[in-house]
Amino acid sequence: MKKRTNMKKSFCNVFFLVAFCFILSHARKIKPEKPCKHLTVFYHDIIFNGTNTANATSAATANPTQLGNTNFGMLVVFDDPITKDRLLLSPPIARAQGFYFYDMKDTYNAWFAYTLIFNSTEHKGTINIMGADMMMEETRDLSVVGGTGDFFMARGVATFRTDTQQGTAYFRLQMDIKLYECY
Amino acid sequence: MKKRTNMKKSFCNVFFLVAFCFILSHARKIKPEKPCKHLTVFYHDIIFNGTNTANATSAATANPTQLGNTNFGMLVVFDDPITKDRLLLSPPIARAQGFYFYDMKDTYNAWFAYTLIFNSTEHKGTINIMGADMMMEETRDLSVVGGTGDFFMARGVATFRTDTQQGTAYFRLQMDIKLYECY
Amino acid sequence: MKKRTNMKKSFCNVFFLVAFCFILSHARKIKPEKPCKHLTVFYHDIIFNGTNTANATSAATANPTQLGNTNFGMLVVFDDPITKDRLLLSPPIARAQGFYFYDMKDTYNAWFAYTLIFNSTEHKGTINIMGADMMMEETRDLSVVGGTGDFFMARGVATFRTDTQQGTAYFRLQMDIKLYECY
Repeated sequence: MKKRTNMKKSFCNVFFLVAFCFILSHARKIKPEKPCKHLTVFYHDIIFNGTNTANATSAATANPTQLGNTNFGMLVVFDDPITKDRLLLSPPIARAQGFYFYDMKDTYNAWFAYTLIFNSTEHKGTINIMGADMMMEETRDLSVVGGTGDFFMARGVATFRTDTQQGTAYFRLQMDIKLYECY
Repeated sequence: MKKRTNMKKSFCNVFFLVAFCFILSHARKIKPEKPCKHLTVFYHDIIFNGTNTANATSAATANPTQLGNTNFGMLVVFDDPITKDRLLLSPPIARAQGFYFYDMKDTYNAWFAYTLIFNSTEHKGTINIMGADMMMEETRDLSVVGGTGDFFMARGVATFRTDTQQGTAYFRLQMDIKLYECY
Repeated sequence: MKKRTNMKKSFCNVFFLVAFCFILSHARKIKPEKPCKHLTVFYHDIIFNGTNTANATSAATANPTQLGNTNFGMLVVFDDPITKDRLLLSPPIARAQGFYFYDMKDTYNAWFAYTLIFNSTEHKGTINIMGADMMMEETRDLSVVGGTGDFFMARGVATFRTDTQQGTAYFRLQMDIKLYECY
Protein backbone atom coordinates (compact mmCIF):
# COMPACT_ATOMS: atom_id res chain seq x y z
CA MET A 1 0.00 0.00 0.00
CA LYS A 2 2.75 2.38 1.00
CA LYS A 3 4.68 1.53 -2.13
CA ARG A 4 1.79 2.52 -4.34
CA THR A 5 1.37 5.82 -2.49
CA ASN A 6 5.05 6.54 -2.96
CA MET A 7 4.91 5.71 -6.63
CA LYS A 8 1.93 7.99 -6.96
CA LYS A 9 3.79 10.77 -5.18
CA SER A 10 6.87 10.26 -7.27
CA PHE A 11 4.83 10.27 -10.44
CA CYS A 12 3.12 13.41 -9.27
CA ASN A 13 6.46 15.14 -8.71
CA VAL A 14 7.78 14.16 -12.10
CA PHE A 15 4.57 15.32 -13.69
CA PHE A 16 4.85 18.70 -12.01
CA LEU A 17 8.45 19.09 -13.05
CA VAL A 18 7.71 18.23 -16.67
CA ALA A 19 4.67 20.48 -16.79
CA PHE A 20 6.63 23.27 -15.20
CA CYS A 21 9.50 22.78 -17.65
CA PHE A 22 7.09 22.86 -20.55
CA ILE A 23 5.33 26.03 -19.41
CA LEU A 24 8.58 27.88 -18.80
CA SER A 25 10.32 26.84 -21.99
CA HIS A 26 7.17 27.66 -23.89
CA ALA A 27 6.91 31.08 -22.28
CA ARG A 28 10.42 31.97 -23.39
CA LYS A 29 10.27 30.59 -26.94
CA ILE A 30 9.93 33.32 -29.56
CA LYS A 31 8.86 32.28 -33.04
CA PRO A 32 8.50 34.58 -36.09
CA GLU A 33 5.03 33.17 -36.82
CA LYS A 34 3.73 33.69 -33.28
CA PRO A 35 3.71 37.39 -32.36
CA CYS A 36 2.08 38.30 -29.05
CA LYS A 37 0.56 41.38 -30.73
CA HIS A 38 -0.10 42.00 -34.42
CA LEU A 39 -1.23 45.24 -36.09
CA THR A 40 -1.63 45.85 -39.81
CA VAL A 41 -1.79 49.55 -40.65
CA PHE A 42 -1.30 51.93 -43.58
CA TYR A 43 1.10 54.87 -43.72
CA HIS A 44 0.38 57.83 -45.99
CA ASP A 45 3.06 60.30 -47.06
CA ILE A 46 2.33 63.51 -49.01
CA ILE A 47 5.50 65.45 -49.57
CA PHE A 48 5.56 69.25 -49.46
CA ASN A 49 6.04 70.72 -52.94
CA GLY A 50 6.08 74.39 -51.95
CA THR A 51 2.36 75.03 -52.39
CA ASN A 52 0.44 72.17 -50.68
CA THR A 53 0.85 73.29 -47.07
CA ALA A 54 -2.67 72.22 -46.12
CA ASN A 55 -2.26 68.63 -47.33
CA ALA A 56 1.47 67.98 -47.00
CA THR A 57 2.53 65.62 -44.20
CA SER A 58 6.28 65.64 -44.84
CA ALA A 59 9.02 67.88 -46.19
CA ALA A 60 12.56 67.40 -47.50
CA THR A 61 14.91 69.16 -45.11
CA ALA A 62 18.04 68.15 -47.04
CA ASN A 63 18.06 67.98 -50.82
CA PRO A 64 19.44 65.09 -52.89
CA THR A 65 23.21 65.15 -53.33
CA GLN A 66 24.89 64.98 -56.74
CA LEU A 67 25.82 61.33 -56.17
CA GLY A 68 23.76 59.49 -58.80
CA ASN A 69 20.25 60.59 -59.74
CA THR A 70 18.03 58.57 -57.40
CA ASN A 71 17.80 61.13 -54.61
CA PHE A 72 20.87 59.91 -52.67
CA GLY A 73 21.01 61.89 -49.44
CA MET A 74 17.54 63.47 -49.67
CA LEU A 75 16.28 63.60 -46.08
CA VAL A 76 12.54 63.84 -45.39
CA VAL A 77 10.96 64.63 -42.01
CA PHE A 78 7.36 63.44 -41.60
CA ASP A 79 4.29 63.58 -39.40
CA ASP A 80 2.12 61.10 -41.29
CA PRO A 81 -1.36 59.71 -40.61
CA ILE A 82 -1.73 55.97 -39.93
CA THR A 83 -5.03 54.36 -40.91
CA LYS A 84 -6.55 50.92 -40.52
CA ASP A 85 -7.59 50.72 -44.17
CA ARG A 86 -6.09 52.00 -47.43
CA LEU A 87 -8.02 55.27 -47.49
CA LEU A 88 -6.00 58.43 -46.94
CA LEU A 89 -9.03 60.20 -45.50
CA SER A 90 -10.07 57.52 -43.01
CA PRO A 91 -9.82 58.68 -39.40
CA PRO A 92 -6.18 58.11 -38.39
CA ILE A 93 -5.62 55.57 -35.59
CA ALA A 94 -2.08 56.88 -35.00
CA ARG A 95 0.58 59.29 -36.25
CA ALA A 96 3.99 58.27 -37.58
CA GLN A 97 6.63 60.87 -36.70
CA GLY A 98 10.23 60.52 -37.84
CA PHE A 99 12.36 60.67 -40.94
CA TYR A 100 13.59 58.74 -43.96
CA PHE A 101 16.35 59.37 -46.43
CA TYR A 102 17.31 57.89 -49.80
CA ASP A 103 20.62 56.05 -49.73
CA MET A 104 21.47 54.31 -53.00
CA LYS A 105 23.09 55.90 -56.04
CA ASP A 106 21.70 53.55 -58.70
CA THR A 107 18.16 52.84 -57.44
CA TYR A 108 15.52 54.25 -55.10
CA ASN A 109 16.12 52.86 -51.62
CA ALA A 110 15.46 54.34 -48.20
CA TRP A 111 16.21 54.12 -44.48
CA PHE A 112 13.62 54.92 -41.77
CA ALA A 113 13.55 55.79 -38.07
CA TYR A 114 10.24 56.84 -36.54
CA THR A 115 7.68 56.55 -33.80
CA LEU A 116 4.10 55.34 -34.09
CA ILE A 117 2.06 57.46 -31.65
CA PHE A 118 -1.27 56.05 -30.52
CA ASN A 119 -3.69 58.20 -28.56
CA SER A 120 -7.14 56.64 -28.82
CA THR A 121 -9.48 54.69 -26.59
CA GLU A 122 -8.08 51.50 -28.15
CA HIS A 123 -4.36 52.20 -27.70
CA LYS A 124 -2.27 54.77 -25.85
CA GLY A 125 1.48 54.69 -26.22
CA THR A 126 4.30 54.59 -28.75
CA ILE A 127 6.19 52.07 -30.86
CA ASN A 128 9.73 52.91 -32.01
CA ILE A 129 10.99 51.50 -35.30
CA MET A 130 14.19 51.71 -37.34
CA GLY A 131 15.75 49.94 -40.29
CA ALA A 132 16.40 49.73 -44.00
CA ASP A 133 13.53 50.09 -46.46
CA MET A 134 14.86 48.16 -49.48
CA MET A 135 12.25 49.53 -51.86
CA MET A 136 13.07 47.08 -54.65
CA GLU A 137 11.95 44.13 -52.48
CA GLU A 138 8.29 43.09 -52.38
CA THR A 139 8.46 43.15 -48.55
CA ARG A 140 11.23 44.22 -46.21
CA ASP A 141 11.67 43.92 -42.45
CA LEU A 142 12.60 46.71 -40.05
CA SER A 143 13.08 46.40 -36.28
CA VAL A 144 10.66 47.43 -33.57
CA VAL A 145 13.26 48.52 -31.01
CA GLY A 146 11.08 49.73 -28.16
CA GLY A 147 7.72 50.89 -26.97
CA THR A 148 5.97 52.82 -24.22
CA GLY A 149 2.47 52.98 -22.67
CA ASP A 150 0.32 50.12 -23.97
CA PHE A 151 3.39 48.95 -25.88
CA PHE A 152 5.70 49.14 -22.85
CA MET A 153 9.08 47.54 -23.65
CA ALA A 154 7.83 46.08 -26.94
CA ARG A 155 10.20 44.51 -29.46
CA GLY A 156 9.50 42.93 -32.82
CA VAL A 157 9.51 43.30 -36.56
CA ALA A 158 7.75 45.79 -38.87
CA THR A 159 7.23 44.48 -42.40
CA PHE A 160 6.83 47.14 -45.11
CA ARG A 161 5.05 46.61 -48.43
CA THR A 162 4.62 49.46 -50.92
CA ASP A 163 0.90 49.72 -51.48
CA THR A 164 0.94 52.55 -53.99
CA GLN A 165 3.44 55.08 -55.31
CA GLN A 166 2.35 58.18 -57.23
CA GLY A 167 5.67 59.64 -58.35
CA THR A 168 7.10 61.70 -55.53
CA ALA A 169 3.73 63.26 -54.66
CA TYR A 170 2.16 60.49 -52.58
CA PHE A 171 3.01 57.01 -51.45
CA ARG A 172 1.35 54.50 -49.15
CA LEU A 173 3.03 51.72 -47.24
CA GLN A 174 1.41 48.75 -45.57
CA MET A 175 3.09 48.22 -42.21
CA ASP A 176 2.68 44.87 -40.58
CA ILE A 177 3.73 45.34 -36.95
CA LYS A 178 4.51 42.08 -35.13
CA LEU A 179 5.51 42.28 -31.48
CA TYR A 180 7.24 39.30 -29.85
CA GLU A 181 7.82 40.76 -26.42
CA CYS A 182 4.67 42.04 -24.73
CA TYR A 183 4.30 42.99 -21.06
CA MET B 1 5.90 7.19 11.38
CA LYS B 2 7.02 6.55 7.86
CA LYS B 3 3.84 8.08 6.55
CA ARG B 4 4.55 11.30 8.33
CA THR B 5 8.08 11.39 6.96
CA ASN B 6 6.74 10.90 3.47
CA MET B 7 4.17 13.60 3.91
CA LYS B 8 6.88 15.88 5.16
CA LYS B 9 9.03 15.07 2.15
CA SER B 10 6.18 15.54 -0.22
CA PHE B 11 5.28 18.84 1.40
CA CYS B 12 8.89 19.85 1.15
CA ASN B 13 8.97 19.10 -2.57
CA VAL B 14 5.80 21.01 -3.26
CA PHE B 15 7.12 23.90 -1.21
CA PHE B 16 10.33 23.98 -3.25
CA LEU B 17 8.45 23.84 -6.50
CA VAL B 18 6.16 26.67 -5.53
CA ALA B 19 9.00 28.80 -4.19
CA PHE B 20 11.01 28.11 -7.29
CA CYS B 21 8.07 28.97 -9.50
CA PHE B 22 7.53 32.18 -7.63
CA ILE B 23 11.16 33.29 -7.80
CA LEU B 24 11.39 32.58 -11.53
CA SER B 25 8.15 34.18 -12.50
CA HIS B 26 9.02 37.14 -10.34
CA ALA B 27 12.47 37.44 -11.92
CA ARG B 28 10.91 37.63 -15.37
CA LYS B 29 8.04 39.96 -14.55
CA ILE B 30 8.69 43.51 -15.73
CA LYS B 31 6.55 46.23 -14.24
CA PRO B 32 6.63 49.94 -15.17
CA GLU B 33 6.85 50.93 -11.51
CA LYS B 34 9.77 48.61 -10.72
CA PRO B 35 12.86 49.59 -12.74
CA CYS B 36 16.10 47.74 -11.90
CA LYS B 37 17.99 51.03 -12.33
CA HIS B 38 16.68 54.58 -12.12
CA LEU B 39 18.51 57.84 -12.94
CA THR B 40 17.03 61.33 -12.94
CA VAL B 41 19.20 63.81 -14.82
CA PHE B 42 18.99 67.19 -16.53
CA TYR B 43 19.85 67.94 -20.16
CA HIS B 44 20.96 71.44 -21.17
CA ASP B 45 20.83 72.67 -24.77
CA ILE B 46 22.30 76.01 -25.91
CA ILE B 47 21.88 76.43 -29.63
CA PHE B 48 24.54 78.08 -31.78
CA ASN B 49 23.41 81.52 -32.97
CA GLY B 50 26.47 82.40 -35.03
CA THR B 51 28.37 84.19 -32.28
CA ASN B 52 28.24 82.02 -29.11
CA THR B 53 30.84 79.41 -30.10
CA ALA B 54 32.25 79.20 -26.57
CA ASN B 55 28.90 78.40 -24.92
CA ALA B 56 26.91 76.68 -27.68
CA THR B 57 26.35 72.94 -27.28
CA SER B 58 24.27 72.34 -30.42
CA ALA B 59 23.80 73.67 -33.93
CA ALA B 60 21.13 73.46 -36.61
CA THR B 61 22.58 71.58 -39.55
CA ALA B 62 19.37 71.77 -41.60
CA ASN B 63 17.13 74.85 -41.49
CA PRO B 64 13.36 74.79 -41.04
CA THR B 65 11.41 74.04 -44.21
CA GLN B 66 8.63 76.30 -45.51
CA LEU B 67 5.98 73.82 -44.26
CA GLY B 68 4.20 75.78 -41.52
CA ASN B 69 6.06 78.14 -39.19
CA THR B 70 6.99 75.93 -36.24
CA ASN B 71 10.42 74.87 -37.48
CA PHE B 72 9.23 71.77 -39.38
CA GLY B 73 12.33 69.96 -40.61
CA MET B 74 14.89 71.93 -38.59
CA LEU B 75 17.56 69.38 -37.62
CA VAL B 76 19.84 70.04 -34.65
CA VAL B 77 22.99 68.09 -33.78
CA PHE B 78 24.05 68.28 -30.12
CA ASP B 79 26.81 67.46 -27.65
CA ASP B 80 25.04 68.54 -24.47
CA PRO B 81 26.05 68.39 -20.80
CA ILE B 82 24.03 66.20 -18.44
CA THR B 83 23.89 67.24 -14.79
CA LYS B 84 22.43 65.79 -11.60
CA ASP B 85 20.74 69.03 -10.62
CA ARG B 86 19.12 71.87 -12.55
CA LEU B 87 22.25 74.02 -12.75
CA LEU B 88 23.80 74.42 -16.18
CA LEU B 89 27.21 74.98 -14.65
CA SER B 90 27.23 71.99 -12.31
CA PRO B 91 29.93 69.45 -13.19
CA PRO B 92 28.40 67.25 -15.91
CA ILE B 93 27.96 63.58 -14.99
CA ALA B 94 27.55 62.59 -18.66
CA ARG B 95 27.29 63.95 -22.21
CA ALA B 96 24.28 63.55 -24.47
CA GLN B 97 25.34 63.22 -28.12
CA GLY B 98 22.81 62.92 -30.93
CA PHE B 99 20.20 64.93 -32.76
CA TYR B 100 16.63 66.18 -32.73
CA PHE B 101 14.40 67.69 -35.35
CA TYR B 102 11.08 69.52 -35.32
CA ASP B 103 8.32 67.60 -37.07
CA MET B 104 4.90 69.24 -36.79
CA LYS B 105 3.56 72.00 -39.01
CA ASP B 106 1.13 73.56 -36.52
CA THR B 107 2.94 73.25 -33.18
CA TYR B 108 6.45 72.76 -31.77
CA ASN B 109 7.12 69.05 -31.54
CA ALA B 110 10.36 67.09 -31.82
CA TRP B 111 11.94 63.67 -32.35
CA PHE B 112 15.18 62.57 -30.63
CA ALA B 113 17.87 59.92 -31.08
CA TYR B 114 20.97 60.14 -28.91
CA THR B 115 23.49 58.49 -26.63
CA LEU B 116 24.15 59.26 -22.97
CA ILE B 117 27.90 58.83 -22.47
CA PHE B 118 29.11 58.24 -18.90
CA ASN B 119 32.81 58.33 -18.10
CA SER B 120 33.18 58.88 -14.36
CA THR B 121 34.14 56.83 -11.32
CA GLU B 122 30.43 56.23 -10.73
CA HIS B 123 29.43 55.03 -14.22
CA LYS B 124 31.28 54.06 -17.40
CA GLY B 125 29.27 53.20 -20.48
CA THR B 126 26.51 54.39 -22.76
CA ILE B 127 22.71 54.41 -22.94
CA ASN B 128 21.02 54.69 -26.36
CA ILE B 129 17.63 56.39 -26.60
CA MET B 130 15.16 57.22 -29.37
CA GLY B 131 11.58 58.38 -29.69
CA ALA B 132 9.07 61.16 -30.10
CA ASP B 133 9.26 64.24 -27.88
CA MET B 134 5.66 65.45 -27.89
CA MET B 135 6.47 68.85 -26.44
CA MET B 136 2.86 69.80 -25.77
CA GLU B 137 2.54 66.96 -23.24
CA GLU B 138 3.56 67.48 -19.60
CA THR B 139 5.64 64.28 -19.80
CA ARG B 140 6.43 61.98 -22.72
CA ASP B 141 8.10 58.59 -22.94
CA LEU B 142 10.93 57.63 -25.27
CA SER B 143 12.58 54.19 -25.52
CA VAL B 144 15.93 53.16 -24.09
CA VAL B 145 16.90 50.75 -26.87
CA GLY B 146 20.34 49.60 -25.75
CA GLY B 147 23.37 50.17 -23.58
CA THR B 148 27.02 49.30 -23.20
CA GLY B 149 29.61 49.15 -20.38
CA ASP B 150 27.91 49.55 -17.00
CA PHE B 151 24.62 49.66 -18.90
CA PHE B 152 25.35 46.52 -20.95
CA MET B 153 22.23 45.43 -22.89
CA ALA B 154 19.99 47.87 -21.02
CA ARG B 155 16.40 48.53 -22.12
CA GLY B 156 13.76 50.79 -20.67
CA VAL B 157 11.94 54.07 -20.84
CA ALA B 158 13.20 57.68 -20.73
CA THR B 159 10.56 60.16 -19.56
CA PHE B 160 11.08 63.77 -20.67
CA ARG B 161 9.70 66.82 -18.88
CA THR B 162 10.48 70.35 -20.05
CA ASP B 163 12.06 72.06 -17.09
CA THR B 164 12.59 75.45 -18.69
CA GLN B 165 12.46 76.94 -22.16
CA GLN B 166 14.03 80.32 -22.96
CA GLY B 167 12.90 80.94 -26.52
CA THR B 168 15.23 79.13 -28.88
CA ALA B 169 18.34 80.18 -26.92
CA TYR B 170 18.31 77.62 -24.09
CA PHE B 171 16.14 74.79 -22.88
CA ARG B 172 16.47 72.24 -20.13
CA LEU B 173 14.81 68.82 -20.01
CA GLN B 174 14.44 66.55 -17.04
CA MET B 175 15.16 63.00 -18.17
CA ASP B 176 13.95 60.20 -15.97
CA ILE B 177 15.79 57.09 -17.14
CA LYS B 178 14.21 53.83 -16.00
CA LEU B 179 15.91 50.58 -16.97
CA TYR B 180 13.96 47.31 -16.79
CA GLU B 181 16.62 44.95 -18.09
CA CYS B 182 19.90 45.10 -16.16
CA TYR B 183 22.77 42.58 -16.40
CA MET C 1 14.54 -1.06 2.71
CA LYS C 2 11.72 1.37 2.21
CA LYS C 3 13.76 4.08 3.86
CA ARG C 4 16.54 3.69 1.36
CA THR C 5 14.09 3.82 -1.54
CA ASN C 6 12.63 6.99 -0.16
CA MET C 7 16.01 8.54 0.32
CA LYS C 8 16.84 7.62 -3.23
CA LYS C 9 13.64 9.21 -4.46
CA SER C 10 14.16 12.29 -2.40
CA PHE C 11 17.73 12.58 -3.65
CA CYS C 12 16.47 12.15 -7.18
CA ASN C 13 13.98 14.98 -6.76
CA VAL C 14 16.53 17.32 -5.31
CA PHE C 15 18.91 16.44 -8.10
CA PHE C 16 16.29 17.24 -10.71
CA LEU C 17 15.44 20.54 -9.08
CA VAL C 18 19.08 21.60 -8.87
CA ALA C 19 19.82 20.51 -12.44
CA PHE C 20 16.72 22.27 -13.65
CA CYS C 21 17.62 25.42 -11.73
CA PHE C 22 21.10 25.36 -13.16
CA ILE C 23 19.93 24.92 -16.76
CA LEU C 24 17.39 27.73 -16.48
CA SER C 25 19.60 30.21 -14.73
CA HIS C 26 22.35 29.42 -17.19
CA ALA C 27 20.04 29.88 -20.15
CA ARG C 28 19.10 33.37 -18.94
CA LYS C 29 22.54 34.59 -17.90
CA ILE C 30 24.03 37.06 -20.39
CA LYS C 31 27.74 37.75 -20.11
CA PRO C 32 29.74 40.23 -22.21
CA GLU C 33 32.39 37.59 -22.97
CA LYS C 34 29.86 34.97 -24.14
CA PRO C 35 27.98 36.19 -27.23
CA CYS C 36 25.69 33.65 -28.92
CA LYS C 37 26.85 34.96 -32.31
CA HIS C 38 30.04 36.83 -33.17
CA LEU C 39 30.97 38.48 -36.48
CA THR C 40 34.08 40.55 -37.19
CA VAL C 41 33.74 42.62 -40.34
CA PHE C 42 35.22 45.68 -42.03
CA TYR C 43 33.34 48.79 -43.14
CA HIS C 44 34.68 50.94 -45.99
CA ASP C 45 33.59 54.53 -46.53
CA ILE C 46 34.58 56.59 -49.60
CA ILE C 47 33.00 60.01 -49.45
CA PHE C 48 31.73 61.76 -52.58
CA ASN C 49 33.97 64.70 -53.51
CA GLY C 50 32.01 65.91 -56.53
CA THR C 51 33.90 63.87 -59.13
CA ASN C 52 34.25 60.27 -57.83
CA THR C 53 30.69 59.09 -58.56
CA ALA C 54 31.85 55.63 -59.64
CA ASN C 55 33.75 54.90 -56.41
CA ALA C 56 31.95 57.00 -53.79
CA THR C 57 29.84 55.07 -51.26
CA SER C 58 28.63 58.03 -49.18
CA ALA C 59 27.82 61.71 -49.51
CA ALA C 60 27.42 64.66 -47.16
CA THR C 61 23.81 65.78 -47.31
CA ALA C 62 24.29 68.55 -44.72
CA ASN C 63 27.49 70.56 -44.56
CA PRO C 64 29.46 71.31 -41.37
CA THR C 65 28.07 74.19 -39.34
CA GLN C 66 30.19 77.16 -38.25
CA LEU C 67 30.39 75.78 -34.69
CA GLY C 68 34.10 74.96 -34.30
CA ASN C 69 36.16 73.56 -37.15
CA THR C 70 35.85 69.80 -36.73
CA ASN C 71 32.85 69.27 -39.00
CA PHE C 72 30.19 69.76 -36.28
CA GLY C 73 26.83 69.00 -37.87
CA MET C 74 28.14 67.47 -41.10
CA LEU C 75 25.68 64.67 -41.93
CA VAL C 76 26.75 61.81 -44.21
CA VAL C 77 24.42 59.23 -45.75
CA PHE C 78 26.10 55.96 -46.77
CA ASP C 79 25.63 52.68 -48.63
CA ASP C 80 28.95 51.07 -47.76
CA PRO C 81 30.42 47.65 -48.55
CA ILE C 82 31.16 45.28 -45.66
CA THR C 83 33.97 42.77 -46.14
CA LYS C 84 35.42 39.89 -44.13
CA ASP C 85 38.97 41.11 -44.54
CA ARG C 86 40.63 44.51 -44.75
CA LEU C 87 40.56 44.75 -48.55
CA LEU C 88 38.21 47.33 -50.03
CA LEU C 89 37.87 45.27 -53.20
CA SER C 90 37.08 41.92 -51.56
CA PRO C 91 33.60 40.66 -52.41
CA PRO C 92 31.26 42.34 -49.91
CA ILE C 93 29.45 40.00 -47.51
CA ALA C 94 26.92 42.72 -46.62
CA ARG C 95 26.01 46.37 -47.14
CA ALA C 96 25.85 48.99 -44.38
CA GLN C 97 23.11 51.55 -45.07
CA GLY C 98 22.53 54.49 -42.78
CA PHE C 99 24.09 57.75 -41.69
CA TYR C 100 26.62 59.37 -39.41
CA PHE C 101 27.23 62.93 -38.37
CA TYR C 102 30.05 64.78 -36.60
CA ASP C 103 29.03 66.17 -33.23
CA MET C 104 31.88 67.74 -31.28
CA LYS C 105 33.17 71.28 -31.70
CA ASP C 106 36.76 70.68 -30.53
CA THR C 107 37.57 67.22 -31.91
CA TYR C 108 36.39 64.75 -34.57
CA ASN C 109 33.65 62.61 -33.07
CA ALA C 110 30.65 60.95 -34.68
CA TRP C 111 27.27 59.31 -34.12
CA PHE C 112 25.94 56.40 -36.22
CA ALA C 113 22.63 54.72 -37.00
CA TYR C 114 22.56 52.08 -39.72
CA THR C 115 21.53 48.66 -40.92
CA LEU C 116 23.79 45.78 -41.90
CA ILE C 117 22.04 44.02 -44.81
CA PHE C 118 23.07 40.42 -45.50
CA ASN C 119 21.89 38.66 -48.64
CA SER C 120 24.18 35.71 -49.28
CA THR C 121 24.01 31.94 -48.97
CA GLU C 122 25.61 32.29 -45.54
CA HIS C 123 23.30 34.94 -44.04
CA LYS C 124 20.01 36.57 -45.02
CA GLY C 125 18.63 39.33 -42.85
CA THR C 126 19.47 42.62 -41.21
CA ILE C 127 21.12 43.92 -38.04
CA ASN C 128 20.19 47.40 -36.76
CA ILE C 129 22.79 49.43 -34.88
CA MET C 130 22.97 52.86 -33.26
CA GLY C 131 25.24 54.74 -30.91
CA ALA C 132 28.09 57.14 -30.36
CA ASP C 133 31.37 56.67 -32.23
CA MET C 134 33.86 58.35 -29.89
CA MET C 135 36.64 58.48 -32.47
CA MET C 136 39.34 59.45 -29.97
CA GLU C 137 38.93 56.11 -28.14
CA GLU C 138 40.85 53.03 -29.31
CA THR C 139 37.57 51.08 -29.27
CA ARG C 140 33.99 52.19 -28.64
CA ASP C 141 30.75 50.28 -28.16
CA LEU C 142 27.46 50.92 -29.98
CA SER C 143 24.19 49.03 -29.46
CA VAL C 144 22.73 46.34 -31.69
CA VAL C 145 19.07 47.24 -31.16
CA GLY C 146 17.32 44.73 -33.40
CA GLY C 147 17.52 42.28 -36.24
CA THR C 148 15.45 40.45 -38.82
CA GLY C 149 15.72 37.25 -40.90
CA ASP C 150 18.67 35.14 -39.72
CA PHE C 151 19.19 37.78 -37.03
CA PHE C 152 15.56 37.80 -35.91
CA MET C 153 15.16 39.84 -32.70
CA ALA C 154 18.92 40.10 -32.18
CA ARG C 155 20.41 42.40 -29.56
CA GLY C 156 23.99 43.04 -28.61
CA VAL C 157 27.02 45.28 -28.88
CA ALA C 158 29.00 46.48 -31.92
CA THR C 159 32.57 47.47 -31.10
CA PHE C 160 34.21 49.92 -33.52
CA ARG C 161 37.96 50.27 -34.06
CA THR C 162 39.39 52.66 -36.65
CA ASP C 163 41.49 50.50 -38.93
CA THR C 164 42.69 53.26 -41.23
CA GLN C 165 41.88 56.88 -41.94
CA GLN C 166 43.05 58.64 -45.11
CA GLY C 167 42.02 62.24 -44.49
CA THR C 168 38.39 62.64 -45.41
CA ALA C 169 38.74 60.56 -48.60
CA TYR C 170 38.55 57.04 -47.16
CA PHE C 171 38.27 55.36 -43.80
CA ARG C 172 37.88 51.78 -42.68
CA LEU C 173 36.36 50.59 -39.42
CA GLN C 174 36.62 47.17 -37.88
CA MET C 175 33.19 46.25 -36.51
CA ASP C 176 33.04 43.49 -33.96
CA ILE C 177 29.38 42.44 -33.79
CA LYS C 178 28.50 40.45 -30.66
CA LEU C 179 24.93 39.23 -30.31
CA TYR C 180 23.67 38.13 -26.86
CA GLU C 181 20.10 37.31 -27.78
CA CYS C 182 19.74 34.79 -30.60
CA TYR C 183 16.57 32.95 -31.63
